[in-house]
Amino acid sequence: MPSRREVNVGLLAGVVVAARGLAGPVLAAEAPRPLPPPKTDGGVSLRAALAKRQSIRSFSERPVPAELLSDLLWAAYGVNRPATGDRTAPSWRHVIVIELYVALADGVWRYDPVPHALVPHLARDLRADTGMQDYVDKAPVNLVYVAHGERMGGIPEADQRLWASVDTGFIGQNVYLLAAAEGLATVFRASVERERLAKTLGLGAGQFITAAQTIGYPAG
Amino acid sequence: MPSRREVNVGLLAGVVVAARGLAGPVLAAEAPRPLPPPKTDGGVSLRAALAKRQSIRSFSERPVPAELLSDLLWAAYGVNRPATGDRTAPSWRHVIVIELYVALADGVWRYDPVPHALVPHLARDLRADTGMQDYVDKAPVNLVYVAHGERMGGIPEADQRLWASVDTGFIGQNVYLLAAAEGLATVFRASVERERLAKTLGLGAGQFITAAQTIGYPAG
Repeated sequence: MPSRREVNVGLLAGVVVAARGLAGPVLAAEAPRPLPPPKTDGGVSLRAALAKRQSIRSFSERPVPAELLSDLLWAAYGVNRPATGDRTAPSWRHVIVIELYVALADGVWRYDPVPHALVPHLARDLRADTGMQDYVDKAPVNLVYVAHGERMGGIPEADQRLWASVDTGFIGQNVYLLAAAEGLATVFRASVERERLAKTLGLGAGQFITAAQTIGYPAG
Repeated sequence: MPSRREVNVGLLAGVVVAARGLAGPVLAAEAPRPLPPPKTDGGVSLRAALAKRQSIRSFSERPVPAELLSDLLWAAYGVNRPATGDRTAPSWRHVIVIELYVALADGVWRYDPVPHALVPHLARDLRADTGMQDYVDKAPVNLVYVAHGERMGGIPEADQRLWASVDTGFIGQNVYLLAAAEGLATVFRASVERERLAKTLGLGAGQFITAAQTIGYPAG
């Protein structure tokens, strides 16, 4: 007998979202999920977060609460200057190239920073597809960094990948620091089966994956 | 009549430092300059620094005090776990690939994170050579991110540049956040004449420049 999850996935299988140029079997039925307002002040000092910054590759299955996921996504690449829409991390020639896909147990979501919400992308648990390490399917959150090469003004593909990857590094460091500040474990991962995952996610023409990052509570 | 600075440069012109595989006309006569101990706790919260993070391209000529330069370099890529020598930013396959060259009015220094000191590299003001923007020679500090490709285990050059550049992004974001916390202006710069500057700096075989970052007090 199929689980409730399998039934849900089955029910969604015919629903195609016509979202911003996405191609392929992109499915979703739920409405965007607002995130709680992020805390943009207070808490651990920058210096203390830097002092604790580390890569941790051993995760508990404990979910990350919505409040903390909200803070994490805002810190990563949220809007920090609402008047201009500018972000917590810089971007190549001031063009927003990177989009954060958030692989959770209940599906894959896109982080939309302007309303600060999760937009449903795929109603499947794809955590195991986001990396080759044995912890990726256990950890509650895997970020997949997706580059919009089609926004990069016709520079060669190798340069697109280079500069989109640098932008990803800026964002990844924000994730490291927020994780350090909040006692979360995280590791930035270059080892992703980029093309296979891009296909599974139904990324549009010109879009590609730069890296991924696993986040959760430390094991033990 | 030559200035005192020019005389100093002249005096140094014959002194070649046999430092870690560096090739070319690498000159220095001074001893390493210890940095004051960095403040690794307290100050502005991580979240407040993220909220203030921005690129600023207009600089005062006011020098950055030694205490703040110390904090900045530690935040950028200092040792945050003395037992292991691990750093405030992650690195490709846990190999330290990036070295920070610090172009100041009194010369170019290498940041050595273990003693937390500046090692003399070139006794010349090369700030104007670190970028094509008109502010680079006025701003008190220009970081030049140098990658040790020779440490990257024979991966193709394009991949060396890619992953070394991601490591540079992690570090650059740390600089952005410390600058935001301390009221400094900074901008990460991809536009560097990499090969010319590498030659001027006398970088060794396999070493290359990934990016640069200008830091100072905001103008006005």
